[in-house]
Amino acid sequence: MERTVENLKEMIRAGRGKIPAHKVIRGGQLVNVMSSEVYPADIAVYNDMIAAVGDVEDYIGPDTEIIDAKGRYLVPGMIDGHIHSECSKLSITSYAKAVVPRGTTSMISGLDEYISVSGLEGLKEIFAEVKKSPLKVFWGAPYKTPYTIPESTVAFNFTKEVHQEVQKWPECFGVWETVREFLQEEDEDTLGAIAEAFKNRLPVFGCAPMAQGNDLNGYLCGGVRLDHESYTHEEVVEKMRKGMHMLIRESSVTHFLEENIKAVTEVNPAFARRVSFCTDDVTATDILEKGHLDNVVRLAIKAGVEPMTAIQMATINSAEAYRIDHLVGSICPGRIADILFVDDLHNFNVEEVMTNGKMVAKDHKLSYELQAPERSSVLKGVLKCKKTTKEDFEYRTSIENGEAKVLAMDVKGPFVRKRRDVVLKVENGIVLPDPEQDVAMVSVLERFGRNGNKSLAFCSGWKLKKGAMASSAAPDDNNLVVMGVSAEDMSIAANYVIEQGGGQVVVADGEILEFLPLPVGGIVSDLEPEEIAAWEKKIDHAARSLGSDLPDPMMYMFFLPITAIPDYAITDAGPVDYTALTTFEPVLEVTEK
Amino acid sequence: MERTVENLKEMIRAGRGKIPAHKVIRGGQLVNVMSSEVYPADIAVYNDMIAAVGDVEDYIGPDTEIIDAKGRYLVPGMIDGHIHSECSKLSITSYAKAVVPRGTTSMISGLDEYISVSGLEGLKEIFAEVKKSPLKVFWGAPYKTPYTIPESTVAFNFTKEVHQEVQKWPECFGVWETVREFLQEEDEDTLGAIAEAFKNRLPVFGCAPMAQGNDLNGYLCGGVRLDHESYTHEEVVEKMRKGMHMLIRESSVTHFLEENIKAVTEVNPAFARRVSFCTDDVTATDILEKGHLDNVVRLAIKAGVEPMTAIQMATINSAEAYRIDHLVGSICPGRIADILFVDDLHNFNVEEVMTNGKMVAKDHKLSYELQAPERSSVLKGVLKCKKTTKEDFEYRTSIENGEAKVLAMDVKGPFVRKRRDVVLKVENGIVLPDPEQDVAMVSVLERFGRNGNKSLAFCSGWKLKKGAMASSAAPDDNNLVVMGVSAEDMSIAANYVIEQGGGQVVVADGEILEFLPLPVGGIVSDLEPEEIAAWEKKIDHAARSLGSDLPDPMMYMFFLPITAIPDYAITDAGPVDYTALTTFEPVLEVTEK
Repeated sequence: MERTVENLKEMIRAGRGKIPAHKVIRGGQLVNVMSSEVYPADIAVYNDMIAAVGDVEDYIGPDTEIIDAKGRYLVPGMIDGHIHSECSKLSITSYAKAVVPRGTTSMISGLDEYISVSGLEGLKEIFAEVKKSPLKVFWGAPYKTPYTIPESTVAFNFTKEVHQEVQKWPECFGVWETVREFLQEEDEDTLGAIAEAFKNRLPVFGCAPMAQGNDLNGYLCGGVRLDHESYTHEEVVEKMRKGMHMLIRESSVTHFLEENIKAVTEVNPAFARRVSFCTDDVTATDILEKGHLDNVVRLAIKAGVEPMTAIQMATINSAEAYRIDHLVGSICPGRIADILFVDDLHNFNVEEVMTNGKMVAKDHKLSYELQAPERSSVLKGVLKCKKTTKEDFEYRTSIENGEAKVLAMDVKGPFVRKRRDVVLKVENGIVLPDPEQDVAMVSVLERFGRNGNKSLAFCSGWKLKKGAMASSAAPDDNNLVVMGVSAEDMSIAANYVIEQGGGQVVVADGEILEFLPLPVGGIVSDLEPEEIAAWEKKIDHAARSLGSDLPDPMMYMFFLPITAIPDYAITDAGPVDYTALTTFEPVLEVTEK
Repeated sequence: MERTVENLKEMIRAGRGKIPAHKVIRGGQLVNVMSSEVYPADIAVYNDMIAAVGDVEDYIGPDTEIIDAKGRYLVPGMIDGHIHSECSKLSITSYAKAVVPRGTTSMISGLDEYISVSGLEGLKEIFAEVKKSPLKVFWGAPYKTPYTIPESTVAFNFTKEVHQEVQKWPECFGVWETVREFLQEEDEDTLGAIAEAFKNRLPVFGCAPMAQGNDLNGYLCGGVRLDHESYTHEEVVEKMRKGMHMLIRESSVTHFLEENIKAVTEVNPAFARRVSFCTDDVTATDILEKGHLDNVVRLAIKAGVEPMTAIQMATINSAEAYRIDHLVGSICPGRIADILFVDDLHNFNVEEVMTNGKMVAKDHKLSYELQAPERSSVLKGVLKCKKTTKEDFEYRTSIENGEAKVLAMDVKGPFVRKRRDVVLKVENGIVLPDPEQDVAMVSVLERFGRNGNKSLAFCSGWKLKKGAMASSAAPDDNNLVVMGVSAEDMSIAANYVIEQGGGQVVVADGEILEFLPLPVGGIVSDLEPEEIAAWEKKIDHAARSLGSDLPDPMMYMFFLPITAIPDYAITDAGPVDYTALTTFEPVLEVTEK
């Protein structure tokens, strides 16, 4: 996506038709998102660029390949406005295999979980992987890592000094997911990253769930351009009236489209201009079963949005929000040739996909072999934490026997935990989890070999009757999260993941029920999307066999270290009260008996 | 408009209402261009920033000044999307006095004529002047100077090496007015400037009058984002369908709004999203009599555009086209406090103006004293060319007496000259101009002391019966242009401008009829807009007394050196055939008699 005098000359000549196009697409209906019009138009493609649109007969040479669109709609490749592809447990290569055939040709991502486990060295390896894939990544440099308040431990701390370097990289298109509270707290690294972004003419991407009124005003005065996380359409409306671009999130765990889109369908159609879509966190299962952005477009149409408007939300609106509309988001001369062949604008089935000027997918499948790259030791390193014993998961208190009133983090949604006070038994100096009262233990183990931190606290809502689960994939830090009602099983689960070099495990009664290996950084796998989807079901089934009836018990667990959303979380630094932005002592009082 | 960690902290605190606002505007109707809504809302202003919009009672402290909007409409300050303010002959200070009271609070400009006469040194002096004025300038670095093909002479050559430096300046917001033919000709400096802009994340502003089809495709493949010059609405439509942002130009000499706006009112209202306004070249007289962007908004409404849409075209649409919407173009928290107090959305009379958080204008007048800065010798230098004699303006040919067939540049509009072949008398070896046939002589004298170039050719359309005119203000080069039917008067005119250090003069029968001094760079004046407007009338009257009936004979003359528009022009390098991109010999054949 860089330009030199030499390639500009070639592009201009190709645009003028002075050198023949490599490909010409004939016989399609152009979905022109710039003019909100649909009409017959042909497209000339030179290398990875759209050279001409309309009458392109002048662009045909003896070697030009003619592609017959067969009357289908030609739609710009779609842009996921905010995604942690790592959450799918699919490597970039595997993720591209899942989403590109569905029409997602670009994504905005911080690649932040790769960074949290492997730093800039690992990131560069991922950039190289991206370049070989049919999926484009517009990278936003994480405003800081870790994202946590108080600060937790990750492999690499993204500071304002790092921003001074990386914001100059051509891969960098902004500052990623700047969490509101860090502006409010006047965090030096965060403000340093923003100041640097103004200098480097980069937009600042936001993260301000439930922000409103003066809090929102203060956030906007800090220079944030957009947000991808609103819980109600009223929140969307306030943010948009105050000038933000809004990404509506439809992820595997939070389905906001139906509600958020009311800002457009019920409050004011003019908001459509600055609304776009993102999927944030998605599972392989969901992508394979429902689709990706194609599904979001269909949902928007179902919710009453005109197909043209919904397509704009998935294409040009994102591109404008992120200021990449000179590169992607429309089928116009000079843009990158990402073109979808769609059957019908209501049905919106993406039948074939061109990215970077190449036909890459058909019938929801990549149409060529794509190999994941060899991984260096940076990404394939073992987990750097010591083996555990059951004592690591026993909460010791100041009395031998009696009762303890504890603050259990009660899960109310994938990212929301509220306070639940509960009285637990104390036996032999240990506060015991209690399946009857739906209280389990949860622990986060630092796993980058930096300080050996371990935290332990109480949680509720998983309804575990027995056993334990563990995952080294656990955004945003990706430390090792372990949950269970048995300290023995928790230790077995943690140790198994450590031995295997990363993954997710479910344990009961001393036995490994299921284990999904995640060898790349301990967070993702190069398996095919179908294989990961099958694993998701197995892991989910195993987790349910422990008693849980949450929509996705493993995912709800591994989101526990995310502190960005009130009220409670847990990191390797301890359980966190995010309303007070401090760690807290979960045992509130003890009564000796 | 820069950000540091320290001022971000202050801005965030002000946004949160933790420190009181300096001003609060109460009782107005907010024209929210982000949501296309009008509703009552108050505004808190801290320094030059909008801190909050809506309920701002929390922001009021003991020293907060309360401004009563008295029910008026609160409209974002308007943005002129493409303007050479120098063409008005008003210095930045004087120009601000004219346009800010009309609601123009920002302009996109190359300041290119200052650069052509005074280089980067003069430019920095202008930047300092801008900072002291109520008018913001978003500067685009000229893609190259001179703009001419073949190359003419200016004081400073803007090259790709210069771009490597200046594009890093915080004042730089893009590459200015990249003329299509320079991409087509694969000009190294131009392509170097574009490549540099991609590196520096800057948009490339265009100039592609009458571009269409393959020529337009090639231009877009060169990375140009927008254009401000379309002669028909069909041209607008093609450019917008191909992804360009369009500025509709309504200047003092080319009135394109009524025609261009049909793209929106007749072809497709969806085009409105990427249409904005510019005035390009305006006279003080026009601004004082008709208004500035306020007038363009009124014209658009008259042409059938909804007031909200017209206001968006004058504000947020420009801001988005130029990627400055995080700074200006809307009344939202975190944006610069440029706010207009407007009586009525149809009448659109701008009654009061706030810029940078200060009330600066009322009833079409600046409400405080604004002094022009002292000018250094860089901007106040004398014209560096030798005095002329009448022989300099006599066209010598190879025969003594007879006839000469010459190619006269026949003016067809302010920027358009077509070929007119005409037979002139040759006496004593000189091809004579002929008032009877409406043929005058025109000459351009290099005036920066670089090479002493002089050109001489024939022109038609001015209907001069006698005398001469000269101007050292003559975009884009601002060499000294002289026109006349008397070689003696041409020499007197040229010499007078040289002696006076710049200006415009009209001469007849050896007498100076009128002289307008333009001491700043030889192109502009610090006089009040009203004084310049009076001078414009005097100069025009004097030019008409020579016989001309053109709409603005002096302006039509001083545009002659602009080569960017087919077919003919004249620079110090000679008369130019822009269809062939070469100079030409105006005497086609001679016949001795």
